[in-house]
Amino acid sequence: MVKSVNVAIVGTGVVGSAFVSQLLRMSSSIKYNVIYIGNADQSLKAPTGLSADNWASALQSSKTPSLSIPDLLEFLKEQSSITKLPTILVDNTSSLAIAQSYPKFLENKISIATPNKKAFSDNYSLWEQLFNESRKKNDTALLYHEATVGAGLPIIGTLNDLIQTGDKIIKIEGIFSGSLSFIFNSFSQSDDIKFSDIVLKAKELGYTEPDPRDDLGGLDVARKVIILARISGFGINSLNDLDIESLIPKELSSPTLSTADFLSQLPNFDDQIKQQKIDAANEGKVLRFVGSVDLVNNKVFVGIAKYDKSHPFASLQGSDNVISIQTERYTNPLIVQGAGAGSEVTAAGVLADTIKIAQRVAV
Amino acid sequence: MVKSVNVAIVGTGVVGSAFVSQLLRMSSSIKYNVIYIGNADQSLKAPTGLSADNWASALQSSKTPSLSIPDLLEFLKEQSSITKLPTILVDNTSSLAIAQSYPKFLENKISIATPNKKAFSDNYSLWEQLFNESRKKNDTALLYHEATVGAGLPIIGTLNDLIQTGDKIIKIEGIFSGSLSFIFNSFSQSDDIKFSDIVLKAKELGYTEPDPRDDLGGLDVARKVIILARISGFGINSLNDLDIESLIPKELSSPTLSTADFLSQLPNFDDQIKQQKIDAANEGKVLRFVGSVDLVNNKVFVGIAKYDKSHPFASLQGSDNVISIQTERYTNPLIVQGAGAGSEVTAAGVLADTIKIAQRVAV
Ligand SMILES: NC(=O)c1ccc[n+]([C@@H]2O[C@H](COP(=O)([O-])OP(=O)(O)OC[C@H]3O[C@@H](n4cnc5c(N)ncnc54)[C@H](OP(=O)(O)O)[C@@H]3O)[C@@H](O)[C@H]2O)c1
Ligand SMILES: NC(=O)c1ccc[n+]([C@@H]2O[C@H](COP(=O)([O-])OP(=O)(O)OC[C@H]3O[C@@H](n4cnc5c(N)ncnc54)[C@H](OP(=O)(O)O)[C@@H]3O)[C@@H](O)[C@H]2O)c1
Repeated sequence: MVKSVNVAIVGTGVVGSAFVSQLLRMSSSIKYNVIYIGNADQSLKAPTGLSADNWASALQSSKTPSLSIPDLLEFLKEQSSITKLPTILVDNTSSLAIAQSYPKFLENKISIATPNKKAFSDNYSLWEQLFNESRKKNDTALLYHEATVGAGLPIIGTLNDLIQTGDKIIKIEGIFSGSLSFIFNSFSQSDDIKFSDIVLKAKELGYTEPDPRDDLGGLDVARKVIILARISGFGINSLNDLDIESLIPKELSSPTLSTADFLSQLPNFDDQIKQQKIDAANEGKVLRFVGSVDLVNNKVFVGIAKYDKSHPFASLQGSDNVISIQTERYTNPLIVQGAGAGSEVTAAGVLADTIKIAQRVAV
Repeated sequence: MVKSVNVAIVGTGVVGSAFVSQLLRMSSSIKYNVIYIGNADQSLKAPTGLSADNWASALQSSKTPSLSIPDLLEFLKEQSSITKLPTILVDNTSSLAIAQSYPKFLENKISIATPNKKAFSDNYSLWEQLFNESRKKNDTALLYHEATVGAGLPIIGTLNDLIQTGDKIIKIEGIFSGSLSFIFNSFSQSDDIKFSDIVLKAKELGYTEPDPRDDLGGLDVARKVIILARISGFGINSLNDLDIESLIPKELSSPTLSTADFLSQLPNFDDQIKQQKIDAANEGKVLRFVGSVDLVNNKVFVGIAKYDKSHPFASLQGSDNVISIQTERYTNPLIVQGAGAGSEVTAAGVLADTIKIAQRVAV
């Protein structure tokens, strides 16, 4: 007998669209019934006949407004009870409101797969609700979030496996931002290149958010570091507990400054970071923007660090991410490296989680 | 209600001992009932009161001879029916006979977790029996073998996730032997060092098998390459279909040559490989012993290759393994690196598989 599971997808942006297409194209021994697809405005409720080619146009021409969170929960419960199938909610948004509703979905036996970092990097009380002892024992409603760090790279699963099998994490260190990876890899490649020029280029190439300050501020890296720290047992309370070495010069930190003004004034600060680069080069090192978690001294760091030219972080290419996990068993660290953003690899990370959940809950 | 599963362990050598200890030490929401532990001679049948500290002495003083494969199968079936629990067989041997019996265990709803490469690198007909369509659909009896390549490193699981989510593998390349990694990493570190001296040192440090020819011959690497190729859809028929560039000089290839004689004559061939190293250095490259699978041209390679000094393979440390997976989505390859052998990391790889199986089958 073929096993089945219901799937509801919220968020059909860069990652969400790729996710839906990959899911609909996949051949599998489990049957995935897509019962809901919604973005901020529209939705498809209990759609039929969706294919990788037609779902987007069907959604776009749908007259059904997207469901509020409580209505979505009710709809999924109702569908579960009609179909007698378990449900997986795939959250491909970056909504904090949806993240804060995970406990409600889980309580109602709805599993979750998501690349949305919010639930895991917000206040510790939400983390506690999601990963307390009774949640860990609950295998009816599962919560997988591999793509919250390094997109499709095997990071969260690997870390969980290490810990579950009894290893002790000593130190985690990595480059967790595709845009900052690109910026620092390029910056270390030539002596003449100006930092502000690379920021512009990264923006043009689509590596940064529309406002590059969203990357340069380091907040996204800090969220990932919090997730890694918490998995490793260091229960950082909130983002406010982190010292983030922002790349936005203090003089340009006013939130009222427009993106254009910020970018036009950034060249005034090129000399500062150039000097840092020269100082590092004099020690045979290069600069990288990293996040790290030291589980021996319970310290986290988000900012610029220096690495020997022979260090794996120094030879990183393009916008790749890298993570180095040092443990009691891996005294030489376990390293994972590769694209840590992008629609297809991120969607694949979320889909692999969805499959793992389905393999455990489908009936 | 607590879910439970029966576990039977064959092989209590380097990996098996570490596995049993890790399993018995683990805290988990699933209950793992160890119903059998056996090595080549002795066994514990339906033991009670085992702990990480006493199981080895209990086994050693056991008067129960180990069960033959058919008897083990009968015993596990019987226990499953008495306890009404599913069973996981953990094969920590390198026995081909046990590997060949996997289909029988699976048919009888017994799942398998193993670091034993034999079943996956033997004739293709056995692979076919283990991974044909009806086996893939069968989720009562599962087969996980993460530790057959790179020990505890996330390689097989990652590759399976990539393929299952619709990515296409283009090229896989890696250093899959801890001993050969150590030997070539050391060899490239200094100009004067002799190849034969490093082989001796690797043997002294316990990096090689008791007879270093078992590593130098490249057969173990070839087995891993076959596994990676087959997962990626390139169904290599058998080990005989592979050209292996053995590091054992032809003149010393007689199977009647003793280990001692081999090692005493190896220095006569130091000049050959030294010349290869100098030629590579003249191109700014280093030598590494690698395995690779080219999925575009369906070609496999096991032997010495040259890498730029800036290539991730060139900066490898100690006896680490590394794999580089290039796919349609990961145009810059996804790289995983770290210890690819050793009792604790290998056992952890097998235990992580056991947990994943238990999460799917425990009742
Ligand atoms: N892009 C990457 O490479 C990457 C990598 C790793 C992780 N992630 C994470 O993946 C998630 C999605 O990223 P993305 O790049 O796909 O973002 P995106 O392109 O901005 O898409 C976000 C989607 O969420 C929808 N949405 C927002 N609020 C919603 C709500 N309350 N209810 C329903 N739908 C809502 C949006 O709807 P509209 O279309 O109607 O606006 C849009 O479809 C984020 O959490 C991000 O951090 C992304
Ligand atoms: N060691 C590593 O770092 C590593 C890494 C990756 C994969 N692996 C794989 O892991 C497996 C175990 O390796 P290992 O290093 O632990 O080997 P090992 O130390 O030689 O242990 C092998 C064990 O298997 C037992 N055995 C052999 N034939 C048997 C049979 N027919 N029935 C029951 N027990 C049998 C042996 O029993 P006796 O004790 O009675 O001889 C011994 O306990 C191998 O397949 C190896 O390739 C090992």
